[in-house]
Amino acid sequence: MTQRTGLVIVNTGDGKGKTTAALGVFLRAWGRDMRVGGVQFFKHENASFGEIKAAKQMGFELTPMGDGFTWTSRDIDETRAKAVHGWRVAQDKIIGGGYDVFLLDEFTYVLSFGWLDTAEVIAWLRANKPAALHLIITGRDAPQALVDYADLVTEMKLIKHPFDNGVKAQPGIEF
Amino acid sequence: MTQRTGLVIVNTGDGKGKTTAALGVFLRAWGRDMRVGGVQFFKHENASFGEIKAAKQMGFELTPMGDGFTWTSRDIDETRAKAVHGWRVAQDKIIGGGYDVFLLDEFTYVLSFGWLDTAEVIAWLRANKPAALHLIITGRDAPQALVDYADLVTEMKLIKHPFDNGVKAQPGIEF
Repeated sequence: MTQRTGLVIVNTGDGKGKTTAALGVFLRAWGRDMRVGGVQFFKHENASFGEIKAAKQMGFELTPMGDGFTWTSRDIDETRAKAVHGWRVAQDKIIGGGYDVFLLDEFTYVLSFGWLDTAEVIAWLRANKPAALHLIITGRDAPQALVDYADLVTEMKLIKHPFDNGVKAQPGIEF
Repeated sequence: MTQRTGLVIVNTGDGKGKTTAALGVFLRAWGRDMRVGGVQFFKHENASFGEIKAAKQMGFELTPMGDGFTWTSRDIDETRAKAVHGWRVAQDKIIGGGYDVFLLDEFTYVLSFGWLDTAEVIAWLRANKPAALHLIITGRDAPQALVDYADLVTEMKLIKHPFDNGVKAQPGIEF
């Protein structure tokens, strides 16, 4: 049998596929009867993207914990408060949720905006993450300390994007 | 309603997440009741990876069409014959399968090995791919002509890999 080691996986870069690859891991792991779940930072609490619909049907928990933040968001304090709260919720789930794979989606922004201290977050994870738990963190601009801590880091690099040609985001593909 | 345009998506590069991101698109699209399916080139016909298990449970078709090819494969002629046959099967499914999203997994190798002519494949797709069908092609070293044809191209770039530290491939994560 393959040795079970909980990996810390970071999907970063300016390209597509950071969250999507995490969802692909969910599909694979779920297919093996592993318990998967995660918190989506920034995504609106009432969001109903393809992955949320799938989660309901497949019976896993993927919790949007944000206020639908965009770069034009008016109330940045609320966005920040929701993100910090999301981390508290995630901490409980990481410690006590019995997960095999857990996702902190778009979590790098919470760190790079300075809303949480990267060193503190990593110290907490080192002390509290169950050894066998695979943890996936996504988002652009992963802090170097997070890259150093992680086992597997992939940069998704944009080579060509249809928005350049005026094609709109496609449901089921982009969200 | 968002305009529906079938995208040609290529996930290439030497990093992880090419197939996995395609599976994440499957999860999203399946969550939206879209019809997803694909052919996995090279993967052994009797393979039972996490994604194959998930496909069975979720009720979509993901067909491994290879002989478990590795770089030490002894019978390259058989590997090649199976890959070319896989393309015929995929062509039928693309034309008549009624799919919303279709995956040609690790298909770039079939092109870069010269087992199929890239220009012919692209000409066939231009003539026969249903306009609304999203087509995903994965694998390293995507030929430039394929990149030119595609709408969305992402390079998955390896930044750090746990195999470097002697950690074995983990079920549910890597396969």
